[in-house]
Amino acid sequence: MNDTEKSEFLKEFGARIRQIRKAKGFSQEELASACELDRTYIGGIERGERNISLLNIKKIGTALGVNLRELF
Amino acid sequence: MNDTEKSEFLKEFGARIRQIRKAKGFSQEELASACELDRTYIGGIERGERNISLLNIKKIGTALGVNLRELF
Repeated sequence: MNDTEKSEFLKEFGARIRQIRKAKGFSQEELASACELDRTYIGGIERGERNISLLNIKKIGTALGVNLRELF
Repeated sequence: MNDTEKSEFLKEFGARIRQIRKAKGFSQEELASACELDRTYIGGIERGERNISLLNIKKIGTALGVNLRELF
């Protein structure tokens, strides 16, 4: 993967998180609080600016009430 | 998630990676080389000792020729 592909992949993942969060009716603050993560961190993920770790992916999936498969 | 749950989740993910790697007929060295990651890092992931990042999950999925959904 080159840098453009990495950036596009992270943005695609972030857009998926945002889509599911909104569909579930959560604000960024509510999701952040449910995950014990910072709201600015959630914002960064949704914009594709963060290379999130597996455990934080799991936290977000659990907070959103979805199977991790649904995040991809 | 408490520490035990985190550890169990990482081990479960690692076991899935190992299972797919073996099913595809890759050694750890071959997978590491295809991902441009270190063999010891791949070993650590498979043992659940590493909290792998999203971009490295993507690299491994690409190298194994699977959709990321299949890793979860």
